[in-house]
Amino acid sequence: MLLMTQNVNCPRVVVVGAGFAGINAAKALGRTAVKVTLVDRKNHHTFQPLLYQVALAVLSPAEIASPVRAVLRGARNVEVLLGEVSGFDLDARQVRIEGEGDSPAITLPYDYLIVASGATHAYFGHPEWAEVAPGLKTLEDAIEIRRRVLMVFENAERVAIAGNVGPPLNFVVIGAGPTGVELAGAIADISKRYMEHDFREIDPSKSRITLLEGGPRVLASYPEDLSASAEQQLRDMGVEVRTNAMVTNVEPGWVTVGKDPVSKEKIPATVTLWGAGVSASPLGKMLGVSVDRAGRVIVEQDLTVAGHPEVFVIGDLAAAPLHPAGPSHVDDATNSQTTPAGNSSPQSGAPPAKSAPVQLVPGVAPAAIQMGKFAARQIKRSVAGKPRETFHYLDKGTLATIGRSRAVGYVGKLHISGYFAWLAWLFIHVFFLIGFRNRFMVMMEWAWAYISYKSSARLITGEEESKPAQPRAKAG
Amino acid sequence: MLLMTQNVNCPRVVVVGAGFAGINAAKALGRTAVKVTLVDRKNHHTFQPLLYQVALAVLSPAEIASPVRAVLRGARNVEVLLGEVSGFDLDARQVRIEGEGDSPAITLPYDYLIVASGATHAYFGHPEWAEVAPGLKTLEDAIEIRRRVLMVFENAERVAIAGNVGPPLNFVVIGAGPTGVELAGAIADISKRYMEHDFREIDPSKSRITLLEGGPRVLASYPEDLSASAEQQLRDMGVEVRTNAMVTNVEPGWVTVGKDPVSKEKIPATVTLWGAGVSASPLGKMLGVSVDRAGRVIVEQDLTVAGHPEVFVIGDLAAAPLHPAGPSHVDDATNSQTTPAGNSSPQSGAPPAKSAPVQLVPGVAPAAIQMGKFAARQIKRSVAGKPRETFHYLDKGTLATIGRSRAVGYVGKLHISGYFAWLAWLFIHVFFLIGFRNRFMVMMEWAWAYISYKSSARLITGEEESKPAQPRAKAG
Repeated sequence: MLLMTQNVNCPRVVVVGAGFAGINAAKALGRTAVKVTLVDRKNHHTFQPLLYQVALAVLSPAEIASPVRAVLRGARNVEVLLGEVSGFDLDARQVRIEGEGDSPAITLPYDYLIVASGATHAYFGHPEWAEVAPGLKTLEDAIEIRRRVLMVFENAERVAIAGNVGPPLNFVVIGAGPTGVELAGAIADISKRYMEHDFREIDPSKSRITLLEGGPRVLASYPEDLSASAEQQLRDMGVEVRTNAMVTNVEPGWVTVGKDPVSKEKIPATVTLWGAGVSASPLGKMLGVSVDRAGRVIVEQDLTVAGHPEVFVIGDLAAAPLHPAGPSHVDDATNSQTTPAGNSSPQSGAPPAKSAPVQLVPGVAPAAIQMGKFAARQIKRSVAGKPRETFHYLDKGTLATIGRSRAVGYVGKLHISGYFAWLAWLFIHVFFLIGFRNRFMVMMEWAWAYISYKSSARLITGEEESKPAQPRAKAG
Repeated sequence: MLLMTQNVNCPRVVVVGAGFAGINAAKALGRTAVKVTLVDRKNHHTFQPLLYQVALAVLSPAEIASPVRAVLRGARNVEVLLGEVSGFDLDARQVRIEGEGDSPAITLPYDYLIVASGATHAYFGHPEWAEVAPGLKTLEDAIEIRRRVLMVFENAERVAIAGNVGPPLNFVVIGAGPTGVELAGAIADISKRYMEHDFREIDPSKSRITLLEGGPRVLASYPEDLSASAEQQLRDMGVEVRTNAMVTNVEPGWVTVGKDPVSKEKIPATVTLWGAGVSASPLGKMLGVSVDRAGRVIVEQDLTVAGHPEVFVIGDLAAAPLHPAGPSHVDDATNSQTTPAGNSSPQSGAPPAKSAPVQLVPGVAPAAIQMGKFAARQIKRSVAGKPRETFHYLDKGTLATIGRSRAVGYVGKLHISGYFAWLAWLFIHVFFLIGFRNRFMVMMEWAWAYISYKSSARLITGEEESKPAQPRAKAG
């Protein structure tokens, strides 16, 4: 193990995770009198709200992801380290990075630490479901989901060419949070519109798409009228929406709903996708400080952990008390573009975390961005000898897309749905993409797909995964 | 095994391979009175001349590849089957497709067969080199090469952050045919220009890029003045060019040049890439007809195999006699944008194929396109009761790119090099990309990269390959 021996005459900040929270913290610390090391195990920042568009072959990976080095190239005081965090020593103020191949393990000292390693999928105590029903957190997840969905149609056509009846085109999405709704809507768009003229023997528009939600309504964190609107829009697109449908088993080809041996139902599922649960990155527990039942780190009003004012935990990993600057917000793990958790009723195994009575900052991208900038500002204040501030989350509203020309959303008391909500969704998501080039390319792709009813990124790459797709944290 | 039982009242054509030859044959047979089944093991047609730009992170996979179904969606009489050919029965006129997962093997009957399964890497009897030195034939190859090249810089930075001296930035490209020249030039462009501001501890411009060629000059199939110009342009970019350098061993970290125990030299190579040899797809031998030493199928003047006027073999898989309509052309496996073979002198093991005294149609994309259209026309003529024609290859000239603003090429007696050749290369490659959208997106990417000195597709995806990268045919 190597210990950093460089002489630095300014405070060292280590940021773990290049998601929305981490990258915004690092950017905000750029060109200031601190030395920053940003650690992530991927070399790219992923714009997670558009990940489902990569999964369903509308966009390419490079259009929603930017190399971390490119994002931070202007900040000469920020260095990027591709590696996996294996532990922390808060007393010695050190982060340990795993060795890899020929390169030995590294110990990074810090004066300030920002942990922003995000969330991963939670399978409610059934890790074996992960292989059958992949979730959507990384580019690799998206590419694997794309492969599975497109291969259903390819296999069916192949068998039909041989004169046989192929596997049914049955897609089941578990969890009707924002990601589950997006995935179900996108499969409907693709199968019923974009692939209309692609096959000769099979009819992709005969696909059966079932969206299973354990709770009483879709988009549970949204106002009831918008949940109802979203459900109606999904039905209009041909998605079978089933609420109060508790998933009790997931196996190849089947999803079981219900516990009762008589009334339980096995739903055929050629492809099953998971949008139902999230849990915090395991790095939270590695810190050795208080975490809640979902593994989120309990932080103070300045987003630091108790007794360690030099250690910030931000983004989806943080259980931060809500001091809203905008309208109040109910804590709900489902209320998120970036932390898809829809099947909020526990189905078996460990229940998803329910918050303590205190309301928490929601696990959404805008909150992560605000937290990243806040943590950076607090470090600059401390360096300047100024006292800490209290984090206030500003809720600018929420939008969930359902499919082509369909979405729901609200800003305060204003509720919108349908075409106008979808336009707002498009505009906002293009605007927040990192980099002029990405914004431009995504606009072009969307315009092309909208005009031509063709999605261009329908490539199947890579081999079938031979090993189970294990849930993984997004960073660290 | 299933036998097709559909009643068809028009001739059935089976096309194997969706490269330039196969897809052009299938397109030319669209909207005519034949039923066509195009078989490929990938769902996309890859524009191979730009594959190196994906490997070196300038373009994204979706920008140079189109889903085969999308390309052929207007041709209602053409169906696409994703599968792997396992054999032929020329007497019974059947193609066998391997079973896969739940779907059984298929036997496709045909009235006409077009085999266009292309070429694969050849390691001169050293298949174990494949793992160390990947070649460039598929999108997966390109993504793997990208991962290896970018990880060199990431690992070096990582070790430098820990205060140690990291692995040297040594890149060795074996074979100075068009692909080897492109790869070496692109690594020089990336390391010396595009990544200039990306790292803090290491200096990517200190990369050492060595291009090894077994023969006396680079681009051996080009006129001597252009070889000299290409070599000078490579040197100007900082590439170390070594001709008459016979590679005798490839192992992790090292490439050995020379056989003599005293004078042989071990060149350090953190990453080794292979552009040195091609051999025909194994499907050629499966046909059970005459093949040449490189495994190419010997065809008649109408591109059919002797005794089987209903079986066409086209593209890189064909050893077709040259009856030039344009200037005469020396057969040389290195003379190709799509069949990179540079290290033309045999180094060990089986020598690369040398043509019989008869001159052959070169293994380049324009020849494959012309052959595809020709085969389709002959089938239509036969259906109409007309006699066969003789295939004439029209040589429209050749261009090889070296790097940003650098290329060489010739059309007949006109030799061009440098900036003007590069512009011609850009224009022609954009023009021949399939699909308006791809042309537009690639033009935008290139404009962006040219203006900003940033390549945007610098994403590392996927895990390190745990198994050797086996050479594979591009289709079938």
